[in-house]
Amino acid sequence: MINIRFPDGAVRQYEAGVSAMDIAKSISEGLAKKILVAGVNDQVWDLSRPITSDSSIKLFTWNDAEGKNTFWHSSAHLMAEAIEAKFPGVKFWVGPPLDNGFYYDIDLGDRKITEEDLVEIEKKMNELAKQNNVYIRTEKAKADAIAYFTEKGDEYKLDLLQNLEDGNITFYTQGNFTDLCRGPHIPHTGFIKAIKLLNIAGAYWKGDEKNKQLTRIYGITFPTQKELDDYLIMLEEAKKRDHRKLGKELGIYTMNDDVGPGLILWLPNGAVIIEELEKLAKETEEAAGYKRVVTPHLAKENLYLTSGHLPYYADSMFAPMEMDGEKYYLKAMNCPHHHKIFDAEPKSYRDMPYRLAEYGTCYRYEQSGELFGLMRVRCLHMNDAHIYCTKEQFAQEFKAVNDMYLKYFEIFGIDKYVMRLSLHDPEKLGQKYINEPELWLETEELVRNVLKESNIPFVEVKGEGAFYGPKIDVQIWSAIGREFTLATNQVDFAQPRRFKLSFTNQNNEPEIPLIIHRAPLGTHERFIGFLLEHYAGKFPVWLAPLQVKILPISDKFLDYAIAVKTTLQKAGVRVEVDERQEKIGKKIREAEISKVPYMLIVGEKEASENKISVRRHGKGDIGQLSVDEFVHNIAEEIKYRKAD
Amino acid sequence: MINIRFPDGAVRQYEAGVSAMDIAKSISEGLAKKILVAGVNDQVWDLSRPITSDSSIKLFTWNDAEGKNTFWHSSAHLMAEAIEAKFPGVKFWVGPPLDNGFYYDIDLGDRKITEEDLVEIEKKMNELAKQNNVYIRTEKAKADAIAYFTEKGDEYKLDLLQNLEDGNITFYTQGNFTDLCRGPHIPHTGFIKAIKLLNIAGAYWKGDEKNKQLTRIYGITFPTQKELDDYLIMLEEAKKRDHRKLGKELGIYTMNDDVGPGLILWLPNGAVIIEELEKLAKETEEAAGYKRVVTPHLAKENLYLTSGHLPYYADSMFAPMEMDGEKYYLKAMNCPHHHKIFDAEPKSYRDMPYRLAEYGTCYRYEQSGELFGLMRVRCLHMNDAHIYCTKEQFAQEFKAVNDMYLKYFEIFGIDKYVMRLSLHDPEKLGQKYINEPELWLETEELVRNVLKESNIPFVEVKGEGAFYGPKIDVQIWSAIGREFTLATNQVDFAQPRRFKLSFTNQNNEPEIPLIIHRAPLGTHERFIGFLLEHYAGKFPVWLAPLQVKILPISDKFLDYAIAVKTTLQKAGVRVEVDERQEKIGKKIREAEISKVPYMLIVGEKEASENKISVRRHGKGDIGQLSVDEFVHNIAEEIKYRKAD
Repeated sequence: MINIRFPDGAVRQYEAGVSAMDIAKSISEGLAKKILVAGVNDQVWDLSRPITSDSSIKLFTWNDAEGKNTFWHSSAHLMAEAIEAKFPGVKFWVGPPLDNGFYYDIDLGDRKITEEDLVEIEKKMNELAKQNNVYIRTEKAKADAIAYFTEKGDEYKLDLLQNLEDGNITFYTQGNFTDLCRGPHIPHTGFIKAIKLLNIAGAYWKGDEKNKQLTRIYGITFPTQKELDDYLIMLEEAKKRDHRKLGKELGIYTMNDDVGPGLILWLPNGAVIIEELEKLAKETEEAAGYKRVVTPHLAKENLYLTSGHLPYYADSMFAPMEMDGEKYYLKAMNCPHHHKIFDAEPKSYRDMPYRLAEYGTCYRYEQSGELFGLMRVRCLHMNDAHIYCTKEQFAQEFKAVNDMYLKYFEIFGIDKYVMRLSLHDPEKLGQKYINEPELWLETEELVRNVLKESNIPFVEVKGEGAFYGPKIDVQIWSAIGREFTLATNQVDFAQPRRFKLSFTNQNNEPEIPLIIHRAPLGTHERFIGFLLEHYAGKFPVWLAPLQVKILPISDKFLDYAIAVKTTLQKAGVRVEVDERQEKIGKKIREAEISKVPYMLIVGEKEASENKISVRRHGKGDIGQLSVDEFVHNIAEEIKYRKAD
Repeated sequence: MINIRFPDGAVRQYEAGVSAMDIAKSISEGLAKKILVAGVNDQVWDLSRPITSDSSIKLFTWNDAEGKNTFWHSSAHLMAEAIEAKFPGVKFWVGPPLDNGFYYDIDLGDRKITEEDLVEIEKKMNELAKQNNVYIRTEKAKADAIAYFTEKGDEYKLDLLQNLEDGNITFYTQGNFTDLCRGPHIPHTGFIKAIKLLNIAGAYWKGDEKNKQLTRIYGITFPTQKELDDYLIMLEEAKKRDHRKLGKELGIYTMNDDVGPGLILWLPNGAVIIEELEKLAKETEEAAGYKRVVTPHLAKENLYLTSGHLPYYADSMFAPMEMDGEKYYLKAMNCPHHHKIFDAEPKSYRDMPYRLAEYGTCYRYEQSGELFGLMRVRCLHMNDAHIYCTKEQFAQEFKAVNDMYLKYFEIFGIDKYVMRLSLHDPEKLGQKYINEPELWLETEELVRNVLKESNIPFVEVKGEGAFYGPKIDVQIWSAIGREFTLATNQVDFAQPRRFKLSFTNQNNEPEIPLIIHRAPLGTHERFIGFLLEHYAGKFPVWLAPLQVKILPISDKFLDYAIAVKTTLQKAGVRVEVDERQEKIGKKIREAEISKVPYMLIVGEKEASENKISVRRHGKGDIGQLSVDEFVHNIAEEIKYRKAD
């Protein structure tokens, strides 16, 4: 008998050779039907693989990242089987899972694949899936594997085999298709209920443009048709909401070749959103006891040698400037500058926690091919802050940071979010992780408890913490269900030591503070990119670059329109009058396209009664109001940052 | 007879050989007593020098820069005479006037000069001044001049002579002292009524540290004792108000060797002032119809080749960063980025004037020896904006900019200011000045008229305009009478052409806009440096980093103090409670030192009556108020940015 330990700590005994599927069945048949793959001693295994010694086990379903990954990897094999059936003699390079779906790179010789082919491959895949073909794992001697692919004439798999060690080589077979593959896979093809092949692209072998160009086919699969339908709707919607498209249409940002790639020029409408976000952050941070600072965007090499960014992070930093025999670098992080401010004047326990906030600008050198709209840029404005605190203050400070996230999520209508808590690996203390075993355990436990108490959904990942402390990655989903990485929170035991930071404690002794790095609103670039998609450009009133457009029915009512405008401006509303001599229908249509939240139509009746006819974007006419009523309503809507 | 033209355009006839002094006397004896030097055909001349052909003339008094310069230059000669009397054999290098006063670099051989010597030299100067010795100009042949100084054994003047052309060499003699000097000088030493030698410093010959070190003696003189007394009081006060001293004491800013020289780290109290200034600028600019933008701090070399900053301005820019085979430069100006934003979308006459504002950060490479506190830095945050307008809109836009200056001057209690209007020189069109003769005359006239209509004191300087248009330098004086250069406004015809900017005019044709560059609040660095001196660190409430300090008489009233604090915070007031267990006297003293505008003392009586005892910094006790009354008063004081 062997001991099997479950994630909750429970241990049960099974006969040696038991499989994860057997174990699942021993718990419940329902569970057994849902699981796709298992974690055995932190490795992902086929459910059928025999377990021969004491082990820990996790059972993964579609809802786990490991489940999805395996599902899509198995789907890539299914697609390969269908392609081979249609194009005998096709050769396969690699077919990995992606964040969403999978691809396979294939060599079709002289043949070209078409959109119609995709439809037929999809059809074949559906047919093969229904056969419930089992994915069968076979261990192979390297010589046998080489013999197999030599006979098949497959130079790609032979290339892959070169780098594999004997004893570590496995084949997987389902139906008529066999592939060199380290696995694991889902039990059988029957799990794959809904299939969509998305597109065809060219891809150089091994990503090297000197090599032959292969054909890459992208696809996605789901366990139900509904999920596929939802996904395709989401994709369609995401195209409409593309932040690059909306960013241009709404005058949010531009880029310019003479300025440089990845360097955003924020147009007036984008600058309004930046102002509003900073205002929100400043208010929120002031109420939470943060102090603001302003630091330069560069520093001498020495500062980054102290912080450790140099030399290890040099490839991600901008090139240095040489002046007065010194190298200056644009900052990739704000922390070192903040540490110098913490250190500028002596600190005592009375000053702690000391919270420094700045919308700090960081510069990261990204390969030009990786730049992408607002999402991947070279210059980013970060909602940054560093909290210097005692160990005793840590839990409360960390909770306050979390509460700030939740407050923001509410304001922006972010309903789905998860925090990914990355922990240290005790076996790698002193190498991958700073050697402070107690601090690690203590802070990890504190963080975990805060997340639990705040009811925040989170997952734990062992061995992915930063060098200097546990790390929390915040994932959010936009209104159409797309995932974004918003920000990273980090606990830091290392930098206070590197920068020799200390405060005088109540015993009049120097003590090293802990640091929390946090950036709940991420960067302006990524967050505004997210918001463009999330709101489809239809910003809530408080964020809208233009909040009200006044549309006089004719020139006769222009004076009244301007009077209303002045009243609104005095109340702090961003407002314009459409002074053109156009028909009211056209004015309304164009205002709708520009996504301004409120349109105020003014004509004879309105002017004589000191009223306005109000149209809300996306909702149409919402009736007549007196000017005072409207001013009062919109002022409240702005002040409380209402969602709609 | 020759024609003499006066600044007002009047022309009068005089006999050839007439002197400026003769001309002054012909106008009025009073004037003749006040003038120090003359401008003859835009060259500064001795009053006694004969004028032999038709000329234009200006008569300069102490109130003109030319008058002061000459007065102090003549004072340097007077000091030299006194030094030579006291230290026979002393050798003289150069003795120029300064913005305030003068110095002379001298070689005393092995002798050292002491503070006591200064007193004696001063005494001797006073004695010589009273002799009313005339400054006598003599033209010398170069050979004679060389012979004179060879005999004297004066290697310094011989060195100077090397670079002078025969026919251009003059000597000046007053009393027993003769110097090689191009002049001009005031009529006689009797004008110098008040003398103070300020300090002694070392100065390498020709500023080269490989050369011999000379002794530099600084002094200042005035036409009346009262002016000297006022100046010395101002100097004393300026020392107390030194922005570097106050900046440290009040926690406004710091610098750090690892970050780099001239790179300001704004501490929390400094960041509050920055926030308030930006808030003021944003409110003011929004009301004036500006749009805000946010641009990156760097760009490719090509942008600055287009703007013309490269290669001509390269020495004043930071060194380039090389990435992807391109050179990137930190921006020294914000204009090129703004032009790219103007150009990002097509513009029509409906969009004009188009006003783009940004607190833009610029980087200027200053020699490390020239850096000085906040006044001379390498990274500066500029209250920048660019107004793109039509020729027809120019006067109104320029007036609006001026009105903004006046509004700011009022807010900050700046009573003394002057604008220096630098014009083009018609003879240098196409060389030193862009060749748009009509635009020059037209905009100069428009600017001049606006300055006159707005009743703004200004002076005109021909031939000092920027290459691309007339320039207005704004000089302001602090509360203690020290002069600061606040900002430069510029009219620009060149950049719109270089950047190929245009808008579609009402005739549907492309038209080139004019640009106004303006920065009424200058840079945060220089303006906050100025404000520290101007207010002596006693900021008006709206600008004060901490506005209210609550001082409980004992721990018993801490809860009440905290309740008052919460009320004030809700009203947007920056407030702290002194929670220490110290005597109230000490709390008050320390609060006074920290220059917090309001101290609220709370004890038994106050707590029971829901009142506070209010102390105003510098004014003492101003009585008891209810909490509501105080909140109302201070909220008004902040809202209207009251001076006191």
